[in-house]
Amino acid sequence: MPQLYVGNKNYSSWSMRPWVLLRQVGIPFDEVSVRFDSFEADSDFKRTVGSVNPTGTVPVLIDDDLAVWDTLAIAEYAAERWPDAQLWPAHRAQRARARSICAEMHAGFRSLRSHCPMNIEADLSTQGALIWRDQPGVRADVTRIVAMWSELLAAHASSHADGMLFGRFGIADAYFSPIVMRLTRYALPVPPEVAGYMARVEALPGVKAWVDGALAEQDFLDFEEPYRLGR
Amino acid sequence: MPQLYVGNKNYSSWSMRPWVLLRQVGIPFDEVSVRFDSFEADSDFKRTVGSVNPTGTVPVLIDDDLAVWDTLAIAEYAAERWPDAQLWPAHRAQRARARSICAEMHAGFRSLRSHCPMNIEADLSTQGALIWRDQPGVRADVTRIVAMWSELLAAHASSHADGMLFGRFGIADAYFSPIVMRLTRYALPVPPEVAGYMARVEALPGVKAWVDGALAEQDFLDFEEPYRLGR
Ligand SMILES: N[C@@H](CCC(=O)N[C@@H](CS)C(=O)NCC(=O)O)C(=O)O
Ligand SMILES: N[C@@H](CCC(=O)N[C@@H](CS)C(=O)NCC(=O)O)C(=O)O
Repeated sequence: MPQLYVGNKNYSSWSMRPWVLLRQVGIPFDEVSVRFDSFEADSDFKRTVGSVNPTGTVPVLIDDDLAVWDTLAIAEYAAERWPDAQLWPAHRAQRARARSICAEMHAGFRSLRSHCPMNIEADLSTQGALIWRDQPGVRADVTRIVAMWSELLAAHASSHADGMLFGRFGIADAYFSPIVMRLTRYALPVPPEVAGYMARVEALPGVKAWVDGALAEQDFLDFEEPYRLGR
Repeated sequence: MPQLYVGNKNYSSWSMRPWVLLRQVGIPFDEVSVRFDSFEADSDFKRTVGSVNPTGTVPVLIDDDLAVWDTLAIAEYAAERWPDAQLWPAHRAQRARARSICAEMHAGFRSLRSHCPMNIEADLSTQGALIWRDQPGVRADVTRIVAMWSELLAAHASSHADGMLFGRFGIADAYFSPIVMRLTRYALPVPPEVAGYMARVEALPGVKAWVDGALAEQDFLDFEEPYRLGR
């Protein structure tokens, strides 16, 4: 059985992506949960993760004696390893589009990521309103996300009833699911069709299972909490 | 014929990756060169690139009416579109490893990238020595690159005579070719087996063709030149 190393569910946006992906399509795996005690070289986190991944980050997928690190490589590996799950769109041009937006996510949206770190259990709507007022980079990132999602949702509205970015659920939806967490928890303004998509993502069993895990964690990590002193 | 939009060859490390990839394996394409006049919204660069790519960055690959943006999505698209070129390793585990290191490059090595921007025609060895002395993040990035390359070169030394990261040339080598440019131009210290690999990369016809283009450009862009006042 493959093993997936993940960090704290409440905070680890990168871990969320492959976990939601595999869980939502029913690929069985063993979860190895590694708490973020700190990211210092001598932390338990770094010792545990460093033993399987030279970059010292989660997520990592272990399949037999192969370690695959980085969310995007894990997604590609999963698409090859479990072809029946159809994790990428079947049509080549759509697949290229899905890969373009996932790669854009992988290296981009830095303002949103730094100003609005994922924090699933928190209500950060006041902080979100201040960030929205003061941070043009966050507004630009959200504007781009809204344009991207709106265009894809309109293009795929008729082709399939699931209402995901490319019709049915796939890597792109898993990849943007932590963005859905941020937009809702920080209550950033989005148009109705985007809010509808976000509600559908929150209702996916794979996403719900991750969110439930995050709420059950009851952990509070100062270095992941720029906006709170406690829960 | 596919079109590849690229920026200034001397400076645009992201553009270099797919250009070297396609050129080295002999896939024909039309180059659309877009000068970096500036990255402001009203620049010629943004107007030209923004008309084909919503993220406003190069590189972009146009194949018929499909626009593929972001280097990693372009690489995956090329691997599917031209399977005979065998752009990824043939063996699944090796392919996963190649994807892991490319994804690591895509979002990582930020210290090296920010302190040592690519500048192919420049001799920045003095700046490199100062950066090496003062920037632990740069030393950590180079240490990781050296470990990655050394391990792969040792593992694939016997399997193929080409001496590339996975034996024969592929996406991983193209993906790290701008790192080779940085390590040489800033003269950062590397062990002999890594210097040997770097020399082989510089000797690849696809890399030489890009470097020749960079040297022929004769352009000087202040915002890409933190260490020089002129050529
Ligand atoms: N590009 C990586 C990013 C992974 C990453 O940064 N993960 C965080 C947790 S969400 C981590 O492990 N951080 C530890 C550290 O930065 O030292 C991926 O896509 O997997
Ligand atoms: N993640 C993108 C990065 C592309 C990128 O940042 N390209 C630079 C030139 S090397 C660019 O177009 N910059 C314009 C800007 O940042 O506005 C990729 O892999 O293609």
